[in-house]
Amino acid sequence: MPHEQHGGRLVSSVAFTLRTPRIVAARKLRRRRERDAAGRFLAEGPQAVREALAAGRARELFVTADALARQRELVNAADAAAVPVSSVADDVIEALAETVAPQGVVAVCDRVDVPFAQALGARPRLVVLLVDIRDPGNAGTVLRTADAAGADAVIFVGDTVDPYNGKCVRASAGSLFHVPVAREHDPMTVVAALGRRGVRVLAASGYGDQDLTTLAAAGGLVVPTAWAFGSEAHGLPAEVMSAAAATVRVPVYGRAESLNLAAAAAVCLYASASAQADAAPQR
Amino acid sequence: MPHEQHGGRLVSSVAFTLRTPRIVAARKLRRRRERDAAGRFLAEGPQAVREALAAGRARELFVTADALARQRELVNAADAAAVPVSSVADDVIEALAETVAPQGVVAVCDRVDVPFAQALGARPRLVVLLVDIRDPGNAGTVLRTADAAGADAVIFVGDTVDPYNGKCVRASAGSLFHVPVAREHDPMTVVAALGRRGVRVLAASGYGDQDLTTLAAAGGLVVPTAWAFGSEAHGLPAEVMSAAAATVRVPVYGRAESLNLAAAAAVCLYASASAQADAAPQR
Repeated sequence: MPHEQHGGRLVSSVAFTLRTPRIVAARKLRRRRERDAAGRFLAEGPQAVREALAAGRARELFVTADALARQRELVNAADAAAVPVSSVADDVIEALAETVAPQGVVAVCDRVDVPFAQALGARPRLVVLLVDIRDPGNAGTVLRTADAAGADAVIFVGDTVDPYNGKCVRASAGSLFHVPVAREHDPMTVVAALGRRGVRVLAASGYGDQDLTTLAAAGGLVVPTAWAFGSEAHGLPAEVMSAAAATVRVPVYGRAESLNLAAAAAVCLYASASAQADAAPQR
Repeated sequence: MPHEQHGGRLVSSVAFTLRTPRIVAARKLRRRRERDAAGRFLAEGPQAVREALAAGRARELFVTADALARQRELVNAADAAAVPVSSVADDVIEALAETVAPQGVVAVCDRVDVPFAQALGARPRLVVLLVDIRDPGNAGTVLRTADAAGADAVIFVGDTVDPYNGKCVRASAGSLFHVPVAREHDPMTVVAALGRRGVRVLAASGYGDQDLTTLAAAGGLVVPTAWAFGSEAHGLPAEVMSAAAATVRVPVYGRAESLNLAAAAAVCLYASASAQADAAPQR
């Protein structure tokens, strides 16, 4: 196969097609079962790929001719990390990506999740539990917000969407590569592990007993906290609601029935982050 | 046309098809130009339709046979309000709806926006400006959050998406019918009107000069405030940044570059709502 010099490394000058075996293999990673078996997943778009490279998780980059010209920095970063860059036909990127506009770049990445006890570490201060959240955009957005709020870990609990779902990776905007992420099927195992670490579990619910603002004003958010969020449609499982130290609602000042999940999580996580930052300004 | 008695009113027993003139007319409302000309729009799904009926804005309901049986309450509410309910074939609902799962119910509604000076009222305390936000899901979600935070008005400014876009209506989860909504092309007209009412304009920006937490702690959120939000990709126009009393960033405690728009808006609006509620507990 003819090659040309590009940014210090060899880039195949013959664009891969949908029939190229490495593309066939990569396309399989659009399915969760194949991702689980291979221990790899796809990151789409320049931002996610940049973060994957920075985290040392990218194994291979596929770029269109157009993106090869536009995304010099990305290609150089791949070169520096000795990650192969392969030129692909435009329709290949579309076939690899789950989102509409992957901007010509997709990376095959090694999975990043760790066992949940490892993700929690010994003394976590702020943890997020995503419980039975099926919508990948919501899960990825909360992961991004958890990262911004300085969370120590995000645990995908129960029937929550695969963190490596293309839409979830995309919505996380790189945060999948920043925050320790774990998957654990049984919520009670997670709740017990948090209890042993002295972490207070708060269940977010539109029907929660305690008002977030009142709880924050009473100093209730300074202690190490794990926020559990359920799906917008079904809320949290009853066992998580019962096991939580408190069920907490975001106050509604107007006439909306509720907040959407990403908005509610942002308000809760920032209330905790800000309370903890105030209590430990040296942090 | 044969009719049958249903819930006290006549419901056509012959399902409308894609060729029925009223359906042809309703389908046109998927286009902004047609919505502007007709002064009407479509609300999809039981929640939005329920709110449209409660707000007295629904003019006509289209329901599938299946939804007619499942959504008794909705049909009864329409009957009570003398809003015609027409049975339609399943593919008609799909053709009317912009979202994937309209659950068999679509309503034709009268527009709800008012001139922006009227939306602001004489003494607004919390106002939201959506400036050049093209994503309908983001705009609708912020509208929902604004409603929950008790905002007095939401102004769709500049090139912001049409509030009656199907995805925006859907994401607002009924809040389009709760909060005074206005559209105004020129941001500076809005900023000037807010100034005359003694409302402080804060420009939300990842690169803002002031930190939200510091501003809140200093009591800077107690006064009447208008939050301006721009698109995630392009931020706010320079003229809005310059005209604002302050540019404000949500602090990032972790490694995320930024928050998504809906999350940032939730944190900002709840910081204001909670500061104003604390300052005026009798409200």
